[in-house]
Amino acid sequence: MSAPAVASSKVEPLTTPSDLSQSLFRTRQQTLSLAAPLGAEDQAAQANEDASPTKWHLAHTTWFFETFVLQPFLPGYKVFDERFNYCFNSYYETQGARQPRPMRGLLTRPTCFEVQDYRAYVDEALQSLFGSAVADDPETRSRIALGVNHEQQHQELLLTDVLSLFALSPLRPAYRDGGRTHARDDVSPLRFVGFDGGRRAIGHTGEGFAFDNESPRHDVLLQPFALADRLITNAEWLEFMRGGGYGASNLWLADGWARITKEGWGAPLYWEERDGQWLQMTLWGLQTIDPAAPVCHISFYEADAYARWAGKRLPTEFEWEVAAEDIAVAGNMLSRGALQPLPASGGKGVRQMFGDAWEWTQSAYAPYPRYRSSAGALGEYNGKFMCNQQVLRGASCATPDSHARRTYRNFFYPHQRWQFCGLRLADDA
Amino acid sequence: MSAPAVASSKVEPLTTPSDLSQSLFRTRQQTLSLAAPLGAEDQAAQANEDASPTKWHLAHTTWFFETFVLQPFLPGYKVFDERFNYCFNSYYETQGARQPRPMRGLLTRPTCFEVQDYRAYVDEALQSLFGSAVADDPETRSRIALGVNHEQQHQELLLTDVLSLFALSPLRPAYRDGGRTHARDDVSPLRFVGFDGGRRAIGHTGEGFAFDNESPRHDVLLQPFALADRLITNAEWLEFMRGGGYGASNLWLADGWARITKEGWGAPLYWEERDGQWLQMTLWGLQTIDPAAPVCHISFYEADAYARWAGKRLPTEFEWEVAAEDIAVAGNMLSRGALQPLPASGGKGVRQMFGDAWEWTQSAYAPYPRYRSSAGALGEYNGKFMCNQQVLRGASCATPDSHARRTYRNFFYPHQRWQFCGLRLADDA
Amino acid sequence: MSAPAVASSKVEPLTTPSDLSQSLFRTRQQTLSLAAPLGAEDQAAQANEDASPTKWHLAHTTWFFETFVLQPFLPGYKVFDERFNYCFNSYYETQGARQPRPMRGLLTRPTCFEVQDYRAYVDEALQSLFGSAVADDPETRSRIALGVNHEQQHQELLLTDVLSLFALSPLRPAYRDGGRTHARDDVSPLRFVGFDGGRRAIGHTGEGFAFDNESPRHDVLLQPFALADRLITNAEWLEFMRGGGYGASNLWLADGWARITKEGWGAPLYWEERDGQWLQMTLWGLQTIDPAAPVCHISFYEADAYARWAGKRLPTEFEWEVAAEDIAVAGNMLSRGALQPLPASGGKGVRQMFGDAWEWTQSAYAPYPRYRSSAGALGEYNGKFMCNQQVLRGASCATPDSHARRTYRNFFYPHQRWQFCGLRLADDA
Amino acid sequence: MSAPAVASSKVEPLTTPSDLSQSLFRTRQQTLSLAAPLGAEDQAAQANEDASPTKWHLAHTTWFFETFVLQPFLPGYKVFDERFNYCFNSYYETQGARQPRPMRGLLTRPTCFEVQDYRAYVDEALQSLFGSAVADDPETRSRIALGVNHEQQHQELLLTDVLSLFALSPLRPAYRDGGRTHARDDVSPLRFVGFDGGRRAIGHTGEGFAFDNESPRHDVLLQPFALADRLITNAEWLEFMRGGGYGASNLWLADGWARITKEGWGAPLYWEERDGQWLQMTLWGLQTIDPAAPVCHISFYEADAYARWAGKRLPTEFEWEVAAEDIAVAGNMLSRGALQPLPASGGKGVRQMFGDAWEWTQSAYAPYPRYRSSAGALGEYNGKFMCNQQVLRGASCATPDSHARRTYRNFFYPHQRWQFCGLRLADDA
Repeated sequence: MSAPAVASSKVEPLTTPSDLSQSLFRTRQQTLSLAAPLGAEDQAAQANEDASPTKWHLAHTTWFFETFVLQPFLPGYKVFDERFNYCFNSYYETQGARQPRPMRGLLTRPTCFEVQDYRAYVDEALQSLFGSAVADDPETRSRIALGVNHEQQHQELLLTDVLSLFALSPLRPAYRDGGRTHARDDVSPLRFVGFDGGRRAIGHTGEGFAFDNESPRHDVLLQPFALADRLITNAEWLEFMRGGGYGASNLWLADGWARITKEGWGAPLYWEERDGQWLQMTLWGLQTIDPAAPVCHISFYEADAYARWAGKRLPTEFEWEVAAEDIAVAGNMLSRGALQPLPASGGKGVRQMFGDAWEWTQSAYAPYPRYRSSAGALGEYNGKFMCNQQVLRGASCATPDSHARRTYRNFFYPHQRWQFCGLRLADDA
Repeated sequence: MSAPAVASSKVEPLTTPSDLSQSLFRTRQQTLSLAAPLGAEDQAAQANEDASPTKWHLAHTTWFFETFVLQPFLPGYKVFDERFNYCFNSYYETQGARQPRPMRGLLTRPTCFEVQDYRAYVDEALQSLFGSAVADDPETRSRIALGVNHEQQHQELLLTDVLSLFALSPLRPAYRDGGRTHARDDVSPLRFVGFDGGRRAIGHTGEGFAFDNESPRHDVLLQPFALADRLITNAEWLEFMRGGGYGASNLWLADGWARITKEGWGAPLYWEERDGQWLQMTLWGLQTIDPAAPVCHISFYEADAYARWAGKRLPTEFEWEVAAEDIAVAGNMLSRGALQPLPASGGKGVRQMFGDAWEWTQSAYAPYPRYRSSAGALGEYNGKFMCNQQVLRGASCATPDSHARRTYRNFFYPHQRWQFCGLRLADDA
Repeated sequence: MSAPAVASSKVEPLTTPSDLSQSLFRTRQQTLSLAAPLGAEDQAAQANEDASPTKWHLAHTTWFFETFVLQPFLPGYKVFDERFNYCFNSYYETQGARQPRPMRGLLTRPTCFEVQDYRAYVDEALQSLFGSAVADDPETRSRIALGVNHEQQHQELLLTDVLSLFALSPLRPAYRDGGRTHARDDVSPLRFVGFDGGRRAIGHTGEGFAFDNESPRHDVLLQPFALADRLITNAEWLEFMRGGGYGASNLWLADGWARITKEGWGAPLYWEERDGQWLQMTLWGLQTIDPAAPVCHISFYEADAYARWAGKRLPTEFEWEVAAEDIAVAGNMLSRGALQPLPASGGKGVRQMFGDAWEWTQSAYAPYPRYRSSAGALGEYNGKFMCNQQVLRGASCATPDSHARRTYRNFFYPHQRWQFCGLRLADDA
Repeated sequence: MSAPAVASSKVEPLTTPSDLSQSLFRTRQQTLSLAAPLGAEDQAAQANEDASPTKWHLAHTTWFFETFVLQPFLPGYKVFDERFNYCFNSYYETQGARQPRPMRGLLTRPTCFEVQDYRAYVDEALQSLFGSAVADDPETRSRIALGVNHEQQHQELLLTDVLSLFALSPLRPAYRDGGRTHARDDVSPLRFVGFDGGRRAIGHTGEGFAFDNESPRHDVLLQPFALADRLITNAEWLEFMRGGGYGASNLWLADGWARITKEGWGAPLYWEERDGQWLQMTLWGLQTIDPAAPVCHISFYEADAYARWAGKRLPTEFEWEVAAEDIAVAGNMLSRGALQPLPASGGKGVRQMFGDAWEWTQSAYAPYPRYRSSAGALGEYNGKFMCNQQVLRGASCATPDSHARRTYRNFFYPHQRWQFCGLRLADDA
């Protein structure tokens, strides 16, 4: 996330220290694995201001544990290098000055090997923390759970940021070799599934970890609605393009029209036309478009224009959450290893609610009623991003599976496209 | 409004042609009166990209009637000058190309005298329309009502745009001479008035004119809340400033903090410190700050930061509408002639709900459930601005009295300050 | 000039007070005449940062006399309005703060009528100065002569700035009505006239007025060279365009190529193609291109690229001055009233050296050997612009006739095009 | 150089193939040595648009030999990787499209190891070229000599670009460890050495290699002048700073004043004040200022302002060349290993003419009389940069010794500071 919300969960997420420990070190290891295919230069470069270098993700998530877990809770802990607070603080004003965001790619020092040492040093201290009585302290455990979830967010960002970097390389390198299996030719026609309106409860129930922007749980009034049973595909998007969608001002929000005009957008990010054929840069390198796969790397503006073109609309985040109530939190997420959205499977009911691509909603990112951010560095930013951004729901092919939740609120600026973002249509019923 | 929504009202606003005619020509005359104190150069200059020249407002509102009333409905109507469509179309893509917005100040031709001729020509045609059977046609009358409300919006913009122009003049000229009466020393302490929660109806009832963004009327669920009984004053704002409000990052939304840092904001727009004293540019020229008057010309970011500093929050637009239910639509509006916010009168209950200053809400500007924009040029833009902006409620000292409504949704970008915008605190109850 | 050099002449320019007085008041009157066709709005608008409003030119030249002649030399002189120093100081740091250059168009006050009063007030004071003994003081007279030449520079700027304003108006208004007589079909073929090299004296001889950048007179070594006998015509420029001149990177200086690529230049400024025909905005409104007239409103980059395309080069300013030695200072200048470059007359030898269009040279604007700027506000800026600009020689159709000199050094940035600038080819001999 | 001129020398630079071969491979090896202290990340990052990554320098100089020597002259040569032409072409339009300059830091692929392979491959091919008859061909040898000189330019750039990168690192790493010996306390007082004027020959004599911008040799007229016997020191620069030099508008060229105001310059680049003491980032890391060492990393604007403050001026490039006529081409250059300017030694006459720091002259970079750029890719750019830049003379502590020449014309934009640029005063005599 461009600016991941961090907040103490109010509820103990995992019941035993060993669960938490397992979750922690598995996550720490997983981040390293994601970085493994990348050389030193790949890890250090920054594609643009939204993205961060892999090395920075590796170090920042480590700094997070050092700053918010080890320093406050592990007696006698000595920081690895005093200067890293400046290097790897992201946006915590309370934690002091920091390397300007657009200049993270200039941090050639510490090297990626030194960052690995940093990780090892902090992991060792975390190990020793679990060997002490501190590991039973609810606040400590809550912080660790937060750190795990924070690092999971950066796992997804690491992948999307690598993609944005490799897409700017004239060599169009593949993050992962091999390439996808032969694309499916088609998916089932789009169907809409109806849902009742009425008074519905929204937000985190208190079971397991959640960010505080998912609370307080509260009731909303919904009118009856319908939701498409799958995501919009590349084939459908091509129809929109060929139908002149990017040139029809009446389909666009004013800010969206200004954006596509200024930037010259005429296709999703990472699409390029060569010899009359559309290709798409992916983590597997440059590939032909899979018509049956969900369209991805589109902005909110594009999603909204498509919906208008289709005579439909985007769902609200509440409609989405209600529709997800009985859906298993499972799908094409990080553990699947596909690293790109895949065509919807057959079947009844709404599919692709989790995995493949985050889904833009028409809901502006705003606090739930009676939400108040907590004090201190971690609470400092809870509500800080609740302006100018749109909520996305679901999960993507790059989301760690255990990170997904029905109440999860992802958020990005309406023009941003470098995440795995797609769209699902909604309609009034 | 930076981008006033225009839409056909669905209901006949005024019952007889003569009412409508009276309303129309009174409004047309009123616009001329507002321009009267201004010389040719004052009328032609453009202070910035958000503002438009007076002359442009005079011509654009005229073009609106010519384009959307006379051309479609008055048989045999001949446009005054074919070239004016390019000059005075604001943002109607369907109506064709137009003078780029930032270059409206370069329209030295037509002159202000030619624009007056243009107005007279169109007014005469409108007169002849009222003399014909067309004046009984509901669609025609609906369009005229829309034109009247559109022109009223531009009356307010004309004043705020003149203020922004004169504030940039080294001579700090007064739009109106004489100056305000001696300022009151104080107002009553801030009190909060409680309101019940529950299921409440929101939106236009169908009686009288309304823009289509106020519809459809629908129910929302509210939790009990409290609303401050008056607007925040300049004295209270000075406390915030002296308390370091502009320097405390933890009070600000991230986008707000970036904005005030980049722009160097440390006070409301139009405030200037001279010899240790705060002055404020107004339509009456440069004046000392009136401590008891409502603070004005603040952005949403500033309003939001103030509320956080005060341990409160901004109201939602729904809370505001519910609280306004039993309040008379009256106050310090355009007819009062004050042309600046005035201290709250004494009394019980919420005051200053209409007039003085528009009130920023925490609600992002978004469509009401089942809202769909209509087709054609006028409908083209109904929902076009429903992104990245915040709703403001109430009315200001520059709002034509008959333009104010309890369901009225004004909207601006969160950083914009050149309108008469202030704030009222809310709280959970 | 974007930044006219001002400096005391070292030599008494005119021998008797009455000559000087006549020259002064004739020039003052002439400026008013140039403004006469313009309405209040035309006089107040600013087309871009390089240009200034007519009203500002009228006031600034008046401020110049008030500040540098009346205040120091006329006992008891009382300034017209203390605030005008801020409004109408151009770039004299010593004279204090001033209206930012890009915001001159926001000076709706003082009005053009007040500026006329200002001019009358200052003219009256200048009259009374001539009635006193002060008029015999050499320093006073030198300053007045400087003021006259300064105002002449602004007369040319007034016209070029009006043209840039009207070119941005969708109505493309004419500054002067009537229009040019039927264009000549052709001019004589381009011939080159040879000149000897050797040691040649360059710079002002000391006779009559000159700006100090024309001094000290000094010798330079020249190699034999040839100069084209007339300016390059529009017809010849069209050949360059049709030959792909704007698309051939190898013809361009690197900075020029970057500029035309970024700005999308494909023709001189003010040219527009309509229905396959090239038109040009002029002070007479929009006209068809006259093939025989000199090309105008081109940048140094374009002039340089053309010369390379033609297998020639631009002259140095020294070559130009040597070639002008025996040429009468006469041609299509302001008094002719053509207000646009005209085709070269027939005849032998180099023609069009004065009038029609300023001629870009390959000489960077730099100080002559032993040049030192003098002290004080007027001297403050003498050398201040001697960087990043190119020298132009000759005079244009908008230059007051008595302002032209063989040693005159005009200068603009290499990308600037809004002046009447053309080109003459040179070659090695 | 931001844009090094490349041109075929007109004269055979080295007499035997073995000399040329030795020079070539020594230079190739030297570049690798300069890169040796840098890790992969250091080699890949780009500090700003003026600078390039080390890896890019390593590859671009290799591409230069591949493109301009091996491809045209070595029969059967097969390019290493077709895609590298896009990656490592700098600005040769004729050679086709290329990686945008500001995005060179995104070339994480090829890796630095692959670039080493590329270098080895090309070096091997160059070896085989020397084993063939081609090595006797004058044109081939001329191209190789050009390639050597081109690579030497990039050696200097490599060092200045690393410095600019490390200066932006919060860790302020040292390129070379150890640090300078204790600074000398003072140098001899500044003295001026007089030179006669008259007709003097300027430009390359034809002996040995030279870039074509040093030709044709031609005469100029000089007036008698004096030159300071050493460079201006840091101590003298501090006097300028403490005397308010950066705040006195009257000392500055208009463009310089605009630049320092906009950028907030108050000291040379890489200077930082900590606890009241001035430090300077160097290739040895952050150091205290050496008062006796030449000031460095200043723009032309600053050099010019200092000269005006001192009541002197900068030399012209011709004065400098005349003064250098009898001076040995020796000094603190790359082979010394100081990697920073050192205090002037004692002695008579002008010192520090070569080495320590390039010297800004008041001469705009312009073609010598009768200079014409040659055809083709290499000639394409010979004159392409002769606009808007200033000539610097001498050499710096980072210039390869054999690269320095009395007639050498270095050039940069007047605002650029990241090179080792200092100043020497001149005066009229």
